[in-house]
Amino acid sequence: MSMKDTIKRIKALDERAMKIARERQDNLTKPRRSLGSLEDLSIKIAGIMGNPTPRIKDKVIITMAGDHGVAEEGVSAFPKEVTAQMIFNFLSGGAGINVLARHVGARVVVVDMGVAVDIKDEALVTKKIAYGTANMAKRPAMTVEDATRSIEAGIEVLELEVEKGMDIVGVGDMGIGNTTPSSAIAAVITGEAVSEVTGRGTGLDDEALEQKINVIEEAIRVNKPNKGDTIDVLAKVGGFELGGMAGVMLAAASRRIPVVLDGFISGAAALIAYELAPAVRDYMIAAHRSVERGHSVILDYIGLKPLLDLDMRLGEGTGAALGISIVDAACKILTEMKTFKEAGVSEEL
Amino acid sequence: MSMKDTIKRIKALDERAMKIARERQDNLTKPRRSLGSLEDLSIKIAGIMGNPTPRIKDKVIITMAGDHGVAEEGVSAFPKEVTAQMIFNFLSGGAGINVLARHVGARVVVVDMGVAVDIKDEALVTKKIAYGTANMAKRPAMTVEDATRSIEAGIEVLELEVEKGMDIVGVGDMGIGNTTPSSAIAAVITGEAVSEVTGRGTGLDDEALEQKINVIEEAIRVNKPNKGDTIDVLAKVGGFELGGMAGVMLAAASRRIPVVLDGFISGAAALIAYELAPAVRDYMIAAHRSVERGHSVILDYIGLKPLLDLDMRLGEGTGAALGISIVDAACKILTEMKTFKEAGVSEEL
Repeated sequence: MSMKDTIKRIKALDERAMKIARERQDNLTKPRRSLGSLEDLSIKIAGIMGNPTPRIKDKVIITMAGDHGVAEEGVSAFPKEVTAQMIFNFLSGGAGINVLARHVGARVVVVDMGVAVDIKDEALVTKKIAYGTANMAKRPAMTVEDATRSIEAGIEVLELEVEKGMDIVGVGDMGIGNTTPSSAIAAVITGEAVSEVTGRGTGLDDEALEQKINVIEEAIRVNKPNKGDTIDVLAKVGGFELGGMAGVMLAAASRRIPVVLDGFISGAAALIAYELAPAVRDYMIAAHRSVERGHSVILDYIGLKPLLDLDMRLGEGTGAALGISIVDAACKILTEMKTFKEAGVSEEL
Repeated sequence: MSMKDTIKRIKALDERAMKIARERQDNLTKPRRSLGSLEDLSIKIAGIMGNPTPRIKDKVIITMAGDHGVAEEGVSAFPKEVTAQMIFNFLSGGAGINVLARHVGARVVVVDMGVAVDIKDEALVTKKIAYGTANMAKRPAMTVEDATRSIEAGIEVLELEVEKGMDIVGVGDMGIGNTTPSSAIAAVITGEAVSEVTGRGTGLDDEALEQKINVIEEAIRVNKPNKGDTIDVLAKVGGFELGGMAGVMLAAASRRIPVVLDGFISGAAALIAYELAPAVRDYMIAAHRSVERGHSVILDYIGLKPLLDLDMRLGEGTGAALGISIVDAACKILTEMKTFKEAGVSEEL
């Protein structure tokens, strides 16, 4: 489906389902509101799904990978070939996201959105827009057409996976250098200074961090992304996996499927989706607060409160996996706990 | 086993296992320290178990119940009979702890440490010290002998459950009125003002909260618990389930089993255990920060940082259940992720 049509299908939350869910929460055998965020979360999911007793069975994490021309500016602590190497690691089940996805009972869908080399593996979803972006410090990362194509590729991935069963989706990333476009997007869209939204990524020292900030400032100076034109921002200082992730988010919202955000890169993609369609926010759950500087700025801008704060900054969807488990727990509380009446327990005096 | 012998068996963490676990974490396919608290947690568990590749299979939550004479002072929003009614709810699987324990794959052991009525059910572990404590606002909650007996009953429960398999244990509570003795214990042991460690429990209004603070201050004035004599504190302003939970914690530490604390009441029991044997702290994991006022004071006093902050205050072990899942995830990261060498991924530049 086109980006425009997908956005048009994003509706408001189902207030009626939420009201019924709230009433049920208030009658379960516990002091009212004593399960805090779990209660709120269950009601949000009821509103998203349009179902006052939502169940989460099929859990999916979509991990999108891309390479970045800007990596040649020395903005990452790891060499560029790690993007492709990590895809093999994902496909063989040995990466962090595989471990945490298994832990929470989610399947992982790995997508090549624009890795610099060809990877042949039947478990890999290939939506390669190009062999990595151009170096945004010198020119636009991609064309406007490719920016839209990356979003629509993400929409396609989501649509295909929905067919296999999907009650919730987490959105993760892999791409050496991708905190750099993410910081650029965050700076342009939120209006914060680059230095306020740029962190150490995979582990830069002070000198390299300063170089990274300079590169991002240069990219913004050279390209002049137009904050009011989100596709322009994605094209000039974005990345293919960032566009793809935004597409997944939009498509999930259009299908009334809750979208669990991961960390900083997932947050930058969420900024793109949110600017394109503010209603997508209601379908988003922020799994955790990354230690990557700038993530809190993004969450505040969109208006999301993260569930977890475990000093994580790996990406891949690892935080989203843990978040999905919390959402699942919240829905089980709503659907499986007995009411005072059902359990024969006296109510508040 | 006696309390004294149990305490004698609590040893320091295994530094060698922790060193090997740290080295492994640093070689896994992720930027170093990028999984934050999960990494630290996995290393702590390695030290607790004395195993650099710890696995968590058998998960147990021990939920201990007791009644409180002080409930007659109007310190709870719920009637006293709810303690027993909730035990039936636990046994039939309809309470919050049942739902969350199922979610994380833990078995729930429900223990009657001193409920005011007799409950016959073969799934219930009965260690009834008495039919509820005395009203601590007027006299000691229990005798010194019963305080020790409650701790040793907790030790017995843990020892028995270990035989059935136990890699980790969460410690929860049920007892109408039990935030009142918990606040009293917290005030006496940490030295904080009663008003600083007393919250709304199941949902008191301002007036009832003030009454509760007065009752606790009165209990401390009447009984003069001796901070330097932990059993005296437990006897004068404690509860049977609080003693039992402290016993579970001591016994778990003596067996090198990680103990996951729940919220405020679990924290008050942890204070008792910690004062009796400071080494128990290294075996404790604080699952979450309760909204109940005073919980943070307890965690700071013991020196524990909570994993989760989800505005929960239900008790029963519900927070501990979610915490157990995080600990399990942390251990899986350590044991199941591939190293750079195993996965053929290039290391940091």
